[in-house]
Amino acid sequence: MKEVAIIGFGMTKFGELWDKSLRDLMSEAGLAAISNAAVDHIDSAYVGAMSSGLFVGQEHIASLMADYMGMPGIPVTHVESACASGGLALRQAILEVASGESEIVLAGGVEKMNDGADETYALATASDQEYEAFHGVTFPGLYAMIAHAHMFQYGTKREHLADVAVKNHENGLLNPNAQFHRKITREDVLNSVMVAEPLNLLDCSPVTDGAAAVIVTTLENAKKTGKPFVKILASAHATDSIALHSRKNLATIPAVQKAAEKAYKKANISPADLNVVEVHDCFTIAELVVMEELAIVERGHSGKAVSEGMTKLSGKIPVNTSGGLKSKGHPVGATGIAQVVELFEQLTGQAGDRHG
Amino acid sequence: MKEVAIIGFGMTKFGELWDKSLRDLMSEAGLAAISNAAVDHIDSAYVGAMSSGLFVGQEHIASLMADYMGMPGIPVTHVESACASGGLALRQAILEVASGESEIVLAGGVEKMNDGADETYALATASDQEYEAFHGVTFPGLYAMIAHAHMFQYGTKREHLADVAVKNHENGLLNPNAQFHRKITREDVLNSVMVAEPLNLLDCSPVTDGAAAVIVTTLENAKKTGKPFVKILASAHATDSIALHSRKNLATIPAVQKAAEKAYKKANISPADLNVVEVHDCFTIAELVVMEELAIVERGHSGKAVSEGMTKLSGKIPVNTSGGLKSKGHPVGATGIAQVVELFEQLTGQAGDRHG
Repeated sequence: MKEVAIIGFGMTKFGELWDKSLRDLMSEAGLAAISNAAVDHIDSAYVGAMSSGLFVGQEHIASLMADYMGMPGIPVTHVESACASGGLALRQAILEVASGESEIVLAGGVEKMNDGADETYALATASDQEYEAFHGVTFPGLYAMIAHAHMFQYGTKREHLADVAVKNHENGLLNPNAQFHRKITREDVLNSVMVAEPLNLLDCSPVTDGAAAVIVTTLENAKKTGKPFVKILASAHATDSIALHSRKNLATIPAVQKAAEKAYKKANISPADLNVVEVHDCFTIAELVVMEELAIVERGHSGKAVSEGMTKLSGKIPVNTSGGLKSKGHPVGATGIAQVVELFEQLTGQAGDRHG
Repeated sequence: MKEVAIIGFGMTKFGELWDKSLRDLMSEAGLAAISNAAVDHIDSAYVGAMSSGLFVGQEHIASLMADYMGMPGIPVTHVESACASGGLALRQAILEVASGESEIVLAGGVEKMNDGADETYALATASDQEYEAFHGVTFPGLYAMIAHAHMFQYGTKREHLADVAVKNHENGLLNPNAQFHRKITREDVLNSVMVAEPLNLLDCSPVTDGAAAVIVTTLENAKKTGKPFVKILASAHATDSIALHSRKNLATIPAVQKAAEKAYKKANISPADLNVVEVHDCFTIAELVVMEELAIVERGHSGKAVSEGMTKLSGKIPVNTSGGLKSKGHPVGATGIAQVVELFEQLTGQAGDRHG
């Protein structure tokens, strides 16, 4: 396999972008990445999106993206894996470059969620339709069950959850592309309206429009550019039982643990080697559980670690310096790529005040 | 890049399968392919589906597939590209094996279309939502425009279109998995109800449930099995402007021409070397245009060639020996893989009476 690197990035502002459609967002982020990487063409592209069909009645967005970036003809592939859609778009781009099939590949992600669709229904189609969604459970409800299990097993408190949101809003203040630029307090979170006990409104990531993209090429090419690049040490992917009721322990997300273990092994590093981490905080509890699965904190200790400041910008290992899904926003398909954009900025010294 | 081969296949019966859900279909085809290939595991999988969100309210089907095949944990990725979804699932599997990332990868496709959804709306989301679908045009209408252009430019007749359907129904009679087992005549097609002039009901492929899967591995591994395998000489992918109004000539489908040219070049063969061909006959006109784009017949001559029997089982170059989408059925995401299943059966001497 060829070694692979990222050489450029682009993203739109995240938020309620009523004046921008799906195609506007994809093209804006894609062209920004191409321009940032200073490449004169791309060989192919991948785009992650969770449900453009349900959100805006548009499938076949890969062709749409090629077309609206002004490159009808180039191979573009749409990949979907709920909240991991963007991450998998990057993984496919890495594999295509690693295989030698292509030299310069764009990996993008997009979601246009504010357009009149029933977002809660659309999002719930990422759970088990027949056993979960059909019976009325939605994602806040599913993560509330995970939160309860974590609280029961490890003594995690609502205050710990709230501190995740407080930290992420603090970081988001420093991110010009974030949906929210608003400092919040622990009390704000605890007093915000209940969504699904124990998760309040400010424990939940928002409904967001946005897109992000990066340019992937061989490490060899990247070195020739003379510009900042980030080498990909490893990429790994795992799944789990889709329905919560099939999982052994609701306080865990074993897919993350499996993927992380593979990635650490391939990269030949340990969790202690990490300097900065972006995790999926669709709900505050998700950030806690994922920290434990990545083994950057001992199992059951994530809440305390957050409240003690371990993951703040000034802490031992900053987590979600971008503001996380909570404050930056969560256009589902774009999220994985936006996380990579943040890490690219961090590792190439372009993160400004967000540099931990 | 490593050389890659297909070593096994599986597919469900195609049709209105009211007693089978999306997950049943995916698992049935996937497990059949694993069993046919006689492998004891798969490293990862890809699944093509056009719009499980709109058809049955289920996104995130990659995890669902891993789960219901009894392998929660393995990496599975859903790819979507309208009617090319299955084809791209195979392409991603090929790239993953070629890159050295994995050794045994399943490529599957599925669509559960008969479940109460508005299929015509769901299918139309593969066109340009803002400029086509929103204004009411559906795929029969779009292909009707292509048919008119072809008739105008090349003198193609409705009889030529009808003969595509007649041939494909003849082939479908020999395919136990086909949705329709019914001989039809040119007059049946010409007298069937008008859908979008000049396309009648029997010019259109049906609404179908079904799934198909193949197992991809390195050529080296394939040789070790001692079982029949098919080496992949090339895989290529191209796109076009999504909206018909942006295309220069409605009587052509340049994406197919571009992809074919790349594939011929990589494989170092010419159209004359082909022994059997599966093409996308979602409407009879599509088979004609695609034959021309593949250069197996001179541009403008496809209608006559079909009516003269060139593409029949007994002809010079059999096309759609499986019965095609017209008679075998067209579960959108499964179609690309089902075509590959047919070619695998043809090339390994397992196509029985459908062997041309």
